[in-house]
Amino acid sequence: MPEKKKKLAIIVHSGTLDKLYCVFILGSTATSMGMETHLYFTFWGLNVLVKGGLEKAGLPSTYKHMEEPLKKKLKEMKYPTPYEMLRRMKASGSLKIYACSPTMKMFGVKKEDLIPEVDNIAGASTFLDVASDADITLLV
Amino acid sequence: MPEKKKKLAIIVHSGTLDKLYCVFILGSTATSMGMETHLYFTFWGLNVLVKGGLEKAGLPSTYKHMEEPLKKKLKEMKYPTPYEMLRRMKASGSLKIYACSPTMKMFGVKKEDLIPEVDNIAGASTFLDVASDADITLLV
Amino acid sequence: MPEKKKKLAIIVHSGTLDKLYCVFILGSTATSMGMETHLYFTFWGLNVLVKGGLEKAGLPSTYKHMEEPLKKKLKEMKYPTPYEMLRRMKASGSLKIYACSPTMKMFGVKKEDLIPEVDNIAGASTFLDVASDADITLLV
Repeated sequence: MPEKKKKLAIIVHSGTLDKLYCVFILGSTATSMGMETHLYFTFWGLNVLVKGGLEKAGLPSTYKHMEEPLKKKLKEMKYPTPYEMLRRMKASGSLKIYACSPTMKMFGVKKEDLIPEVDNIAGASTFLDVASDADITLLV
Repeated sequence: MPEKKKKLAIIVHSGTLDKLYCVFILGSTATSMGMETHLYFTFWGLNVLVKGGLEKAGLPSTYKHMEEPLKKKLKEMKYPTPYEMLRRMKASGSLKIYACSPTMKMFGVKKEDLIPEVDNIAGASTFLDVASDADITLLV
Repeated sequence: MPEKKKKLAIIVHSGTLDKLYCVFILGSTATSMGMETHLYFTFWGLNVLVKGGLEKAGLPSTYKHMEEPLKKKLKEMKYPTPYEMLRRMKASGSLKIYACSPTMKMFGVKKEDLIPEVDNIAGASTFLDVASDADITLLV
């Protein structure tokens, strides 16, 4: 009998580049290990799911002075961009992306504003259901 | 035989409005789903449990410029304030609020300074006991 | 038959003093309760594992004005420094410290730059394996 797949559930509240890389590295690794990965984007995180949002993400004010050096370094390393990482995770078939519906209402974001990789527009109850059955739960 | 109630345990380290709404929306949803909800307020989070603290919460410096537009928008939407949300969760009977005792000592906060909705003044061990048995653990 | 030890797994993404105290208080309490504690330092967190890094940690920009009063207060209380706390946790035998290898590459940090308390230089997969079996998972 096959082992039950492990499950990772992350609430992505942040929209800054340092946190996005953290989530996407965890997510890429998890999907490559065959874990089911569920990312629920809310608040500032929801805003990076708006078309063009991932490209605009920068560092928080505490680390603002390191934004340009970091971006330069990542380019030199030919590191994938956050959007490239997200698309690769999607291609694995093990990633589900949720957009928080109350946040969309709060910021006036419509379904057609979101990148097409979003699987599900949902409230917190959908995510709590998923997360209560997960092996790892995190909030970023 | 009734199913065991699911349990959500969150460490609230932050005291900014964006994180508080995140916690209180998760908490409200969880209690309305019948989940036991445990919130342990520490560090900046402890300070919002001081009387008047929830009303003073604002956005972190990265998003400071959005504080007034956000507050205006929430008012227009007749969105409940954080304190109203906290009281509704309490009324459900499924929420327990912990105030971190070492933080209180560090910031010189006394029991009588805290809002009356606090259930328990406790150290980290109390919370680790609760969380080690929870279905979802998060830190905000 | 002895009960299986409880396990706490934390991703330390932050490198600011407020978050480090949060992690180290949780970790100290957990190890003193006999819990296995696993801390995976990544991004800004990785940088505090560089020799001298823990001593340089300050508050994030939102709370910068409170850095000096807080440090003074901690000194008055004879509160242990983050590095002292980390060493005490290590002495318990129940703490494992991981340094994130992709972050080291990104920031040009070498093994010999790190404090000697680091147990393991590893990628995210090592940590996901540990965390998927933990009772409490958090990200700071």
